[in-house]
Amino acid sequence: MKEYDVIAFGTGSAMNIVSAALSMDPGLRVAVIEKDRVGGICLTRGCIPSKMILYQAEVAYHVANAGRFGIKVDGFTVDPMVALSRARRLIEEESAMIERSLREHPRIDLYKGIGEFVDEYTVSVNGVEMRAPKILLCTGSRPLVPPIPGLEEAGYVTSDDFFFIERVPEKWVVIGGGYIGLELGFFLAMAGRRVTLLEMKDRVAPLEEPEVSEALGRKLGEVMDIRTGHRVVAVEKRGDRKVVVAEGPEGTVEFEGDEILVAVGRRSNSDLTKPEKTGVETDERGWIITNEYLETTKPGIWACGDANGKYMFKHKANYESQIVFHNAFLGRRVKADYHAVPHAIFTYPEAAAVGMKEEEAARSHRILVGYYRYMDTAKGEAMMADDDYFVKVIVEDESYRILGAHIVGPQASILIQEVVNLMYTEDGSAAPIFRGMHIHPALSEVVERAFYNLAPPAHWRSHVHHH
Amino acid sequence: MKEYDVIAFGTGSAMNIVSAALSMDPGLRVAVIEKDRVGGICLTRGCIPSKMILYQAEVAYHVANAGRFGIKVDGFTVDPMVALSRARRLIEEESAMIERSLREHPRIDLYKGIGEFVDEYTVSVNGVEMRAPKILLCTGSRPLVPPIPGLEEAGYVTSDDFFFIERVPEKWVVIGGGYIGLELGFFLAMAGRRVTLLEMKDRVAPLEEPEVSEALGRKLGEVMDIRTGHRVVAVEKRGDRKVVVAEGPEGTVEFEGDEILVAVGRRSNSDLTKPEKTGVETDERGWIITNEYLETTKPGIWACGDANGKYMFKHKANYESQIVFHNAFLGRRVKADYHAVPHAIFTYPEAAAVGMKEEEAARSHRILVGYYRYMDTAKGEAMMADDDYFVKVIVEDESYRILGAHIVGPQASILIQEVVNLMYTEDGSAAPIFRGMHIHPALSEVVERAFYNLAPPAHWRSHVHHH
Repeated sequence: MKEYDVIAFGTGSAMNIVSAALSMDPGLRVAVIEKDRVGGICLTRGCIPSKMILYQAEVAYHVANAGRFGIKVDGFTVDPMVALSRARRLIEEESAMIERSLREHPRIDLYKGIGEFVDEYTVSVNGVEMRAPKILLCTGSRPLVPPIPGLEEAGYVTSDDFFFIERVPEKWVVIGGGYIGLELGFFLAMAGRRVTLLEMKDRVAPLEEPEVSEALGRKLGEVMDIRTGHRVVAVEKRGDRKVVVAEGPEGTVEFEGDEILVAVGRRSNSDLTKPEKTGVETDERGWIITNEYLETTKPGIWACGDANGKYMFKHKANYESQIVFHNAFLGRRVKADYHAVPHAIFTYPEAAAVGMKEEEAARSHRILVGYYRYMDTAKGEAMMADDDYFVKVIVEDESYRILGAHIVGPQASILIQEVVNLMYTEDGSAAPIFRGMHIHPALSEVVERAFYNLAPPAHWRSHVHHH
Repeated sequence: MKEYDVIAFGTGSAMNIVSAALSMDPGLRVAVIEKDRVGGICLTRGCIPSKMILYQAEVAYHVANAGRFGIKVDGFTVDPMVALSRARRLIEEESAMIERSLREHPRIDLYKGIGEFVDEYTVSVNGVEMRAPKILLCTGSRPLVPPIPGLEEAGYVTSDDFFFIERVPEKWVVIGGGYIGLELGFFLAMAGRRVTLLEMKDRVAPLEEPEVSEALGRKLGEVMDIRTGHRVVAVEKRGDRKVVVAEGPEGTVEFEGDEILVAVGRRSNSDLTKPEKTGVETDERGWIITNEYLETTKPGIWACGDANGKYMFKHKANYESQIVFHNAFLGRRVKADYHAVPHAIFTYPEAAAVGMKEEEAARSHRILVGYYRYMDTAKGEAMMADDDYFVKVIVEDESYRILGAHIVGPQASILIQEVVNLMYTEDGSAAPIFRGMHIHPALSEVVERAFYNLAPPAHWRSHVHHH
């Protein structure tokens, strides 16, 4: 039995905590357990490589649409392997660097393998047992692969494998219209691949504000064949083709492709780590239950990041890693606050959101809604912005406290930030926007204008339908 | 003698005031005087058409650089007349619409011509004399054309004419490296024209933070021939070519072009309107002197926008127009506040700034400076961001009150806004950035990281030079 001060699961956000703890107390003995490539999901199969390949898609979008602005392009081809190789090189180099630094650290032992609880505060990795009074469960998540008959036999790709494919075949069927399916589908589409995307719900990005989903679906539908309301029921291999059978509004339909991308969601790794054996409770889907201090149900054991199943974004994990560090190592009692966790979908156009959706906000507050289209600003007009690009903001009536914001359009991931920051002031008020200035004619004016157009919910709806 | 309640000079920001005043008091009799096309500089020869044509340049930049991302473009041509015609159509349509609405308004008389004061509160336009107890001097500015020998004879273009040129010749000499020269020069360069830009000072955009100027100069120097430290002393016409003679560090140099763009700055219109005849004082350059309530030295006469020579940006003029409306028509005493007037240069990369520069801030405060490069963020790496793209923020030590921010890089005009908003909170503190989250990996992370890297000024300098 090896004894440590800290056992950390995962080499993603857990490393924020470990490195902060070690710089405070250099004597700590730490075990780090990693079942996959070192570096965490964000680096090795998530946010970072995906944004790298998506930038190619964004540039390709500009090239493909240059004609609208008086730029005649004689012809162009997009090589997706250039982007994928770049992403892969980044992953391999950074991961190797992190692994090396972990291995060289005198106080850290790195264990590569699945860490599984075998007893209270006791973990086994590759047959080695270890124990610590403090355990960090930053166990992440992995792609959920639904039990579709024939899928395993036909073969498929998930976001885990995507950055490592050796060639990019011509015709793809993407199962799932959440942000991963949309982003990778968009990348393929802008590389000239034919993409059919199947979403079970009646709109893509179904967790977004309905108008955002609809606008995004319309825009991305220009480059992909998007089929909402389609539930995949079977997959068949026919020669070297893969056939996805789905049930949709018009009955059973077949979609044929060279490859299938499964992107229906993410699942917990608790089936592998078995936290219940140390007394850590999980919910019915295996996500680790924590209180607002990010303590699990077992003293000394903390969770952060995807492992708790909430807001599965790297910036949220980073934020939580700070909370865990303060509470677990500095003896503080800091509460995690999720009132303004932003996120974005990095297609073209992008989508971004923070805080509450309208329906949710209206349930608990008297609200005002502000809506403005990019095309009604000078920069939006310069960009020939589409009717589908807009900003929608939600504030509490009278106090003007910002409750949420939803954007679909180019640069949404940047535009949202001025709203996010204001949601973290003492009073969360929109007042600084009214007092201040926005550069004219920068794209940010569309955010300012949305706040200038606050009105009761019924009003903005009639305005939108007027267009 | 015609009698009015209000005489408004200019159809730009003055119209904000006039329309607010009329909606409050529909009985007002208003005279509006316009010496140029109706609509103001921003619409008819400034911000709006320039951003329209610059978007073509931005797209052209992406097309020209697509190869770096694995996109093979077989060839492309940029037709700047497509962008210019679009801008011209916009100007003509919008201007005509505004003119029509002014002419049709029952309480407004529109006078087209130069309004010149002839007595106290008395103005003459095209021989018609009129008087009002309240006068709005939103007289704008016009391009400054320096008295360079031979320039008038050779002929030239300013930003006033630029959007109306009938063809875009091959070879340009731009005199002046401020934002207008840079923006229009960049537009020409991205349209495949050969551009030489001459700047008298030792760096372009000389009013920006020195590092911003230098980075911008390096980047734009990749597409234009930028010569700093060159003072133009003469222009000669040789056949159908125009020759600009300048004195530079290596002595007298000649630059030959098909056309000359003069963009050395802007001047007051007070020489035309003669405000001194009604007792309104101006400074030595003709800019109208106002107090912080935007009152001129003559009761009942107010100035806003470029006319006062401060921060000549449309958003500042809009802001001031609100102040004038409140003070002149609602009997309020609102002070104009210029501590956080942002601005941007819309080239590729962009530059943007708000508040104080480092040297200025250090004179009056103990400061901390945060510096971060785009390339050190995930999105910046995805974009293959250059070493020259960065964010620099300046805060007051201890209080963390934001004093200024300076950005050079793509989307700088949007990125700056999250800082601007925080400068308009009650305490102007950077705390919301530390408390909150930035989307990973959105480009905005570079702003967050700049704040995470606050250090005494000497520290960031050594960091920059380390790279």
